[in-house]
Amino acid sequence: MRRIDDLDLNGLKLIQETDMFCFGIDAVMLANFVHCKEDAKVVDLCTGNGIIPVLLSAKIPAKKIIGVEIQEEVAKLAKENVEMNNLQEKIEILNEDLKNVFNILGKSKFDVVTCNPPYRTGGCGVVNEADTKAIARHEILCSLNDVIYSSAMLLKPLGKLFMIHRPDRLCDIMCAMRENKIEPKIVQFVQPDINTKPTHVLIEGVYGGNKHMTVIETKILE
Amino acid sequence: MRRIDDLDLNGLKLIQETDMFCFGIDAVMLANFVHCKEDAKVVDLCTGNGIIPVLLSAKIPAKKIIGVEIQEEVAKLAKENVEMNNLQEKIEILNEDLKNVFNILGKSKFDVVTCNPPYRTGGCGVVNEADTKAIARHEILCSLNDVIYSSAMLLKPLGKLFMIHRPDRLCDIMCAMRENKIEPKIVQFVQPDINTKPTHVLIEGVYGGNKHMTVIETKILE
Repeated sequence: MRRIDDLDLNGLKLIQETDMFCFGIDAVMLANFVHCKEDAKVVDLCTGNGIIPVLLSAKIPAKKIIGVEIQEEVAKLAKENVEMNNLQEKIEILNEDLKNVFNILGKSKFDVVTCNPPYRTGGCGVVNEADTKAIARHEILCSLNDVIYSSAMLLKPLGKLFMIHRPDRLCDIMCAMRENKIEPKIVQFVQPDINTKPTHVLIEGVYGGNKHMTVIETKILE
Repeated sequence: MRRIDDLDLNGLKLIQETDMFCFGIDAVMLANFVHCKEDAKVVDLCTGNGIIPVLLSAKIPAKKIIGVEIQEEVAKLAKENVEMNNLQEKIEILNEDLKNVFNILGKSKFDVVTCNPPYRTGGCGVVNEADTKAIARHEILCSLNDVIYSSAMLLKPLGKLFMIHRPDRLCDIMCAMRENKIEPKIVQFVQPDINTKPTHVLIEGVYGGNKHMTVIETKILE
């Protein structure tokens, strides 16, 4: 079923298909976490229905935001969302595998990469490979390593990767980042209240950044 | 100057030399974080004046706790502390380099390793290599990698490493642990209040543990 949600931000709207993955609070948290300099070139990996590029268009002073989505019908929906919001000048949707995208967009050309990747590892749980929701949630078509390797390929020196994930993947994320020369600089845990464990972690990594400067923050959801 | 502090725990006391490194809240937090099964064999690396073994003797049901300290005069003080508290049956102090200690104590023989290591990296700041305080605070005689490598050598399969450190070293710790097959399982940040960044991180790692199960917690100091 198709529905149109008001994003409550500059009149932006979003078409969603309820049988595909619908955006959640994660996308909003990630968009709020991202910052960039004026005229930055941004790539959003695993863009889904385009929620992150659409939110970022109103939140950061980027010049261009390219959303990359591997699933054809999902990428088509993302394009519809860009057009409905008249954002064609700023946002481009690319129906492409992120593992290959740096060969198309060029290496070391971007200031910022953002990603709200599938949270669950490929092997766990019963998943249907044909299911677009499963592909968005599980590491079926891309692993965490793929996301971080591609980000490193796309980023200019000192370019930034902003990512949201589950706290129980933190060690995987940190090890994969360092292996790919992306140094975690800011780690923000988000938790519903002070007595509950964090549900999400936001990470800002710098490609080619120096070591030993991780800032850890805790944020309580209001 | 020499002073004797009451540890406020089962009548335990500690002699400290004020021109050496004196224990802080870190030691107390680490000792409170450690747990083990009945009759566990424990090694405390970088034991200093012996504060961790002395506290652990009252807190966990360990059979034997071996404190390893590289500095001769500091190890001597640790021995005095063991004797003053009549803990010679339970605690042994070894004046040895932790980089070599598994060749003396044996590999894969211990259930638990604890460590409150020097927090600052070797190269940073002006340090006096002859200064016992500087050796306790900076990675002069041992690096974080040395500590974690030696822990992996000492631990039995599924044995546990409990460590306290500064949050800005988290990525270094996680990468070094995974490289040495110690999987971070519990990561607890300690912060003075909800609006202040964490000052310490406590980590429980399992040697040979499986991946992807890190529990992240935040603790507010009372």
